[in-house]
Amino acid sequence: MKQYRVAVVGALGAVGTEMIRTLEKRKFPVSELVPLDAEINVGKIVKFQGKEFKVQKSGKGAFTGVDFTLFAIGAEVSKVLAPIAVKEGTIVIDNSSQWRMDPKVPLIVPEVNPQALQKHKGLIANPNCSTVQMLVVAKPLHDAFGIKRIVVSTYQAVSGTGAPAIAELTAQAKAFAAGQPIKNSVYPRQILFNALPQIDDFLPDGYTKEEMKMVNETHKILDSKIKVSPTAIRIPVYRGHSESLNIETKKKVTAKEVRAVLMKAKGVKVMDNPSKRVYPTPLDADGNYDVYVGRIREDHTVTNGINLWIVADNLLKGAALNAVQIAELFVKKR
Amino acid sequence: MKQYRVAVVGALGAVGTEMIRTLEKRKFPVSELVPLDAEINVGKIVKFQGKEFKVQKSGKGAFTGVDFTLFAIGAEVSKVLAPIAVKEGTIVIDNSSQWRMDPKVPLIVPEVNPQALQKHKGLIANPNCSTVQMLVVAKPLHDAFGIKRIVVSTYQAVSGTGAPAIAELTAQAKAFAAGQPIKNSVYPRQILFNALPQIDDFLPDGYTKEEMKMVNETHKILDSKIKVSPTAIRIPVYRGHSESLNIETKKKVTAKEVRAVLMKAKGVKVMDNPSKRVYPTPLDADGNYDVYVGRIREDHTVTNGINLWIVADNLLKGAALNAVQIAELFVKKR
Repeated sequence: MKQYRVAVVGALGAVGTEMIRTLEKRKFPVSELVPLDAEINVGKIVKFQGKEFKVQKSGKGAFTGVDFTLFAIGAEVSKVLAPIAVKEGTIVIDNSSQWRMDPKVPLIVPEVNPQALQKHKGLIANPNCSTVQMLVVAKPLHDAFGIKRIVVSTYQAVSGTGAPAIAELTAQAKAFAAGQPIKNSVYPRQILFNALPQIDDFLPDGYTKEEMKMVNETHKILDSKIKVSPTAIRIPVYRGHSESLNIETKKKVTAKEVRAVLMKAKGVKVMDNPSKRVYPTPLDADGNYDVYVGRIREDHTVTNGINLWIVADNLLKGAALNAVQIAELFVKKR
Repeated sequence: MKQYRVAVVGALGAVGTEMIRTLEKRKFPVSELVPLDAEINVGKIVKFQGKEFKVQKSGKGAFTGVDFTLFAIGAEVSKVLAPIAVKEGTIVIDNSSQWRMDPKVPLIVPEVNPQALQKHKGLIANPNCSTVQMLVVAKPLHDAFGIKRIVVSTYQAVSGTGAPAIAELTAQAKAFAAGQPIKNSVYPRQILFNALPQIDDFLPDGYTKEEMKMVNETHKILDSKIKVSPTAIRIPVYRGHSESLNIETKKKVTAKEVRAVLMKAKGVKVMDNPSKRVYPTPLDADGNYDVYVGRIREDHTVTNGINLWIVADNLLKGAALNAVQIAELFVKKR
């Protein structure tokens, strides 16, 4: 089997670390790992497949001879660096929001629109974490019942903000336990024992960028006719985004049919047996690849509707895993 | 001004304690407080208006000569005890779910349906915490725009479960900080850093009792034609239930109009200035009487729709305050 040189930009961050773990776990055919990060981290050691790789400086010249580069850094850095990387001949899979809505850049969830890969020009975008898990579940339901509208409320983990937010939640929990004052700097308010109705910046109409990502990316990836009404909320959970989905369909839909469709769906795991208290929680999804679905109920307030509760590891299916799966599409193709 | 003998059943519980504090804070005309609780707590001291009152045994004979009795105990005890109390001549305001749907018992949110008090037969029910805060906001919107349907997802605090759940969350936070194993007994799973999609027991159609309370109580209190599609979720917050509300109206509705209506509404406080990061969180509602509303946005996926984020102290407006406000209706009436 052909082996590939694979680089990860932001190799020491929350998502970059998971990308490297996921490449190893899924036995991606890597001949050499090239961990890239900021100057300050150059020379640090990353372990991969029992070997040690030194972090190299991310920037011009770093991508020559690299087959795939997974970008796990912010939109502003990606804006500058991704075009350079593509020019140097690597295929870039970018996890930031920078390129997602660019009409020349495919935005891919492998279970939903792998065919979009065909038009790529060296750069592929990885969707927003909240969108990925919603669409993995929405796609088979759209195929079976025709989705008209989704009202979604999210319950998002702090790891979506990155390593500093994880540290802030831990520091707040420790301060609480020690009876000390609780400080915040990453989030505008205390996140411990609280819920924040803001993820990313606000737009003029009152929606946040995070909420509009769920709308716009659904249109680009799945179907531009699906209406999405989103509310994105941060809660004190480390890993695992949850979503309460209210889905209105064109065709008649029953809870039983939805369960049957989702049991066969790729990347989905149904956890739904209320009488035995079987339903997914963020702690169930932590470290796992699937999108978990529970609380499947008919919504009798519309002609055809269903309520669902879905949970997935935002760092894996919401980020690192989806990016690695995109790279895997190339390997299968070749 | 006439003074009243007021009893509280479950005087030492999470809600009972708040009822006594609320009676004091709102200067309810109390001549004598009668704290009632289980045998094990008899003789303990409750402080009220600078005086000390001894806890007496709750049960037959305890209600003679008492004007108002606030019940802050479970449905099963209320089922037996409330009729006894009414027979002994006291007016019972019951916080449990036992009598809410009884057609002979008024179910009251004073800002919404105070007129329902007229038909009382000595027993008045206090609605479910999640319902109260939703209806305080829904009532003025229903009057102005005509509500057709509400899709609601809740973010509920552990204090709704009672004092043992508060203690469990604290114990889990302390165990986490100390690096010790996290134990659970009140909830079926760890609640710290998690979200549980179950509040109260499951019904055969997959909804929980908590969810159906929001449907049925809305019909009884506000309007039986309003369709409610609920999802109730517990999150690791001590006090303050939050709700993501998606409201479809008959009449045309704009965010500006909703803001104007809610600014004038009784019991509502608008906290909505996204550009300055002004929006309510559970920590803002903790200890306060109002239902806070933020994130007011038009929903463009329906002809007339609005998205809102509302937060209220579940032990106050969701329980103790609403009960005391019901008693105040009698005092005003007389």
